[in-house]
Amino acid sequence: MEGKEEDVKLGANKFPERQPIGTSAQTDKDYKEPPPAPLFEPGELSSWSFYRAGIAEFMATFLFLYITILTVMGVGRAPTKCASVGIQGIAWAFGGMIFALVYCTAGISGGHINPAVTFGLFLARKLSLTRAVFYMVMQCLGAICGAGVVKGFQKKEYEALNGGANFVNHGYTKGDGLGAEIVGTFVLVYTVFSATDAKRSARDSHVPILAPLPIGFAVFLVHLATIPITGTGINPARSLGAAIIYNKDHAWDDQWIFWVGPFIGAALAALYHQIVIRAIPFKSRA
Amino acid sequence: MEGKEEDVKLGANKFPERQPIGTSAQTDKDYKEPPPAPLFEPGELSSWSFYRAGIAEFMATFLFLYITILTVMGVGRAPTKCASVGIQGIAWAFGGMIFALVYCTAGISGGHINPAVTFGLFLARKLSLTRAVFYMVMQCLGAICGAGVVKGFQKKEYEALNGGANFVNHGYTKGDGLGAEIVGTFVLVYTVFSATDAKRSARDSHVPILAPLPIGFAVFLVHLATIPITGTGINPARSLGAAIIYNKDHAWDDQWIFWVGPFIGAALAALYHQIVIRAIPFKSRA
Amino acid sequence: MEGKEEDVKLGANKFPERQPIGTSAQTDKDYKEPPPAPLFEPGELSSWSFYRAGIAEFMATFLFLYITILTVMGVGRAPTKCASVGIQGIAWAFGGMIFALVYCTAGISGGHINPAVTFGLFLARKLSLTRAVFYMVMQCLGAICGAGVVKGFQKKEYEALNGGANFVNHGYTKGDGLGAEIVGTFVLVYTVFSATDAKRSARDSHVPILAPLPIGFAVFLVHLATIPITGTGINPARSLGAAIIYNKDHAWDDQWIFWVGPFIGAALAALYHQIVIRAIPFKSRA
Amino acid sequence: MEGKEEDVKLGANKFPERQPIGTSAQTDKDYKEPPPAPLFEPGELSSWSFYRAGIAEFMATFLFLYITILTVMGVGRAPTKCASVGIQGIAWAFGGMIFALVYCTAGISGGHINPAVTFGLFLARKLSLTRAVFYMVMQCLGAICGAGVVKGFQKKEYEALNGGANFVNHGYTKGDGLGAEIVGTFVLVYTVFSATDAKRSARDSHVPILAPLPIGFAVFLVHLATIPITGTGINPARSLGAAIIYNKDHAWDDQWIFWVGPFIGAALAALYHQIVIRAIPFKSRA
Repeated sequence: MEGKEEDVKLGANKFPERQPIGTSAQTDKDYKEPPPAPLFEPGELSSWSFYRAGIAEFMATFLFLYITILTVMGVGRAPTKCASVGIQGIAWAFGGMIFALVYCTAGISGGHINPAVTFGLFLARKLSLTRAVFYMVMQCLGAICGAGVVKGFQKKEYEALNGGANFVNHGYTKGDGLGAEIVGTFVLVYTVFSATDAKRSARDSHVPILAPLPIGFAVFLVHLATIPITGTGINPARSLGAAIIYNKDHAWDDQWIFWVGPFIGAALAALYHQIVIRAIPFKSRA
Repeated sequence: MEGKEEDVKLGANKFPERQPIGTSAQTDKDYKEPPPAPLFEPGELSSWSFYRAGIAEFMATFLFLYITILTVMGVGRAPTKCASVGIQGIAWAFGGMIFALVYCTAGISGGHINPAVTFGLFLARKLSLTRAVFYMVMQCLGAICGAGVVKGFQKKEYEALNGGANFVNHGYTKGDGLGAEIVGTFVLVYTVFSATDAKRSARDSHVPILAPLPIGFAVFLVHLATIPITGTGINPARSLGAAIIYNKDHAWDDQWIFWVGPFIGAALAALYHQIVIRAIPFKSRA
Repeated sequence: MEGKEEDVKLGANKFPERQPIGTSAQTDKDYKEPPPAPLFEPGELSSWSFYRAGIAEFMATFLFLYITILTVMGVGRAPTKCASVGIQGIAWAFGGMIFALVYCTAGISGGHINPAVTFGLFLARKLSLTRAVFYMVMQCLGAICGAGVVKGFQKKEYEALNGGANFVNHGYTKGDGLGAEIVGTFVLVYTVFSATDAKRSARDSHVPILAPLPIGFAVFLVHLATIPITGTGINPARSLGAAIIYNKDHAWDDQWIFWVGPFIGAALAALYHQIVIRAIPFKSRA
Repeated sequence: MEGKEEDVKLGANKFPERQPIGTSAQTDKDYKEPPPAPLFEPGELSSWSFYRAGIAEFMATFLFLYITILTVMGVGRAPTKCASVGIQGIAWAFGGMIFALVYCTAGISGGHINPAVTFGLFLARKLSLTRAVFYMVMQCLGAICGAGVVKGFQKKEYEALNGGANFVNHGYTKGDGLGAEIVGTFVLVYTVFSATDAKRSARDSHVPILAPLPIGFAVFLVHLATIPITGTGINPARSLGAAIIYNKDHAWDDQWIFWVGPFIGAALAALYHQIVIRAIPFKSRA
């Protein structure tokens, strides 16, 4: 007991008693697969930590949209990109915020801040359906409020500069946009699974320590690559929040891409991790 | 006792004997709330570690202003932004210095380097009033000296380029500036609380290790977003130091914003953390 | 046994039972040289972890090429470099992806993602010849697929912009290009050896924790320095994948440089580490 | 003994038996001041680890100059700064290399890579005079070779673009340059002392883990601030290497600044750390 060490649970920390994920066992043999989360967990709804987790997701997504959309506005307003933090600065804003916010909320809610991440972890049965739906609703509400505050600062410019809303840019087809969102979200959710997998934490001492850093970097990198294509969604709450506050027709035309793409990407990453990396279907369970 | 490990105390290290914050207990049950710091702690004033902490805060704020204002000057002087480190480079200077300085002084003074952080931690009763006031005075003195040395290098340019002083930029109202300072400081102090909370450290093994990194990133990110609005204060010592050395009327007109905003933001972050995350008011204490 | 801790094995994790690399012994005396990997290890071929490692290398190199070549395309398409993430953004894409992917795959395959790294570690006898060849084939296949997907998005531009293929740029001789590749790969493989050496991990507590970070940084730094010379290969799979998908004559003319250079650089780094740092030839073995 | 853990020794690892720096004692009381290193340590000269440390310093400084000067050249050659990695990219090259190289050589030689760092640590009696002189000679030789290889690639451009040599730029006095070097080196050596102080490591669990990161960041930040003034030396070996290979009159005119400044800065940082932070003169020793 003395040598035990709890690892980073991006997965959820619903009932500390029920799910002792990540006993930092030092060898493969010591490792036990945590049981899958049930679909409905009635006890959750009467637990303060459940609502606190939802509030933490709301707050994190609020701050995420506030900082990132404000950065996008600042770059858009500048007379030249050189007189601003530039497109690279926008990528840092998205990736850096995810790093800081995952770090800050991992212990409270698991630090999803993204419905696609919640969906991927739900498919891997790391959290209950109740919790997954609650998180997604809170994330979308947070995103709407965050974008709304930015619009409050700079109403006219917000409309002139598209309010950070996601579109498929000129020169690309809808299929390109959908593909970019699928692979981009795959990169993110693949990193989330790899960095927070309890079994890997057991083997690699660096995994629980740095987890928020590669997750933030994954977001930064996908933005470097796909801002020219779609402005980079890979987070349906972020895309919805910006679209609702911007609320022009062309913001809604492509909205489905930023839900379908990330959900497919997250599902593929969950499949890849559970089947190839963990080989869970081929294991018998006691 | 052997397995104990002291965590990163951004809160203060006044009397190592009195406040054994952060026993790295491995489960929630092992965790004990540290007692709130008293308002006045007479013993502090006769302790060398108290004065040493003040000197460390002075030195850190001095170096912070020196490097950051010099970077701002260098960008301002360049014929084009492209021939300098750019606005993004300024954001890195502020965030990077906070990372390095929190790292270097966390063990000596708690690594505040910012009166708003000191204020937020004081509200959460992590340090005494005496210590809070002493820190703030030393931070302001350090900031004034740091900006003064930069002016010493480049007197004429310093005045031509506003000396890194904070204003509400053209195109924004005072209310926009105040709002940007409030939310920006909230992001910083929210990260400070999340990253250094002794209870979370107890649960998440990564928290005590990386704490200075998300704190530095939070400063970087707020600069990415709000340099176009106010030049980004979120640190009253930094705003005061630049204003005193620049000392022109319009530097003083908005000065109140860079005190009121950060203090409100820090207070909200302290409230959020103590009430929502820690639920301290709802707990009975033994 | 209880105090044991497995360290980051970039070297390979073939048979956890056979090669207990990196018992985190606290003094030099406690450290035992792991036995060199055999050239052929028949047991490997019937082990699922062998094929899983190959799949992980394929997937990582696929994602590596996808994100990096897409970033290169985005910078190339932009009307000015300022309106893109810039050359520095390209360097971040390469370095950042290596950081994230080494982090994600270190526990599965050792996280090579680069035939030159595999070659260097093979020379140091950290993995069998069978495994080395298998990894290299999977890396090249992954790279081809990654570049292919990018071409699928933007066929016309892909051809106009050289598809991220490596050449010796105008103004440099072939010898310059070869030299840049040799020293650049030396920097990378030198970092890989230093960061993951089991003996050093035993001495320095930070080594196993941060290993993917300096490795990613090394890739970033070499790109900062040598993008103007060759576009920076230092990874034969990356150069081959881009060349096969681009498939124009001048992409093939210099291809040998991006295989010979990295392999020489990796061999020199392996020699330097084994002879100077570890002094293995001068040690008697029990 | 079981709980012991060796910390990052930037100070030197000459005789592992003689100087058990950094037993990671968990409380102040457990901490014992390591004895100061003797001026002359005859045993060192017959130890392979002494020569190996020198070779490691040579190699690190060689790679440091190679990557950084090549980056400077690449930025200088570009038609506009925007078409290169920019001044910010140069700052990343210097800071990033120091991060990676300190990480790679900390366990072999202490990872100084800079005569000013060696001088500061010598003043604090962390290494013998013999070793300090040997390190400085090896660092200067490494720097000369690194700059030489860059010149080998691009002879004509090397001379046209000043070869990355340090000067006081137009618009600044010699005094400004000297001041910038003093404070800049103070920032670096202050960070080195803070990050690697055995006493602090004992208290703060994050200190031994991340040490190379804040040290690299300090170098990055000083470059952000002072590239416009002197091109940033803060490392006499780097300034000497570039000057010898460039070898024009005006490269030599200011050379003294890049030795006197860093040595004064390092001495002040050593004084500040030993007197203010550690209060060593006021302690009685057993």
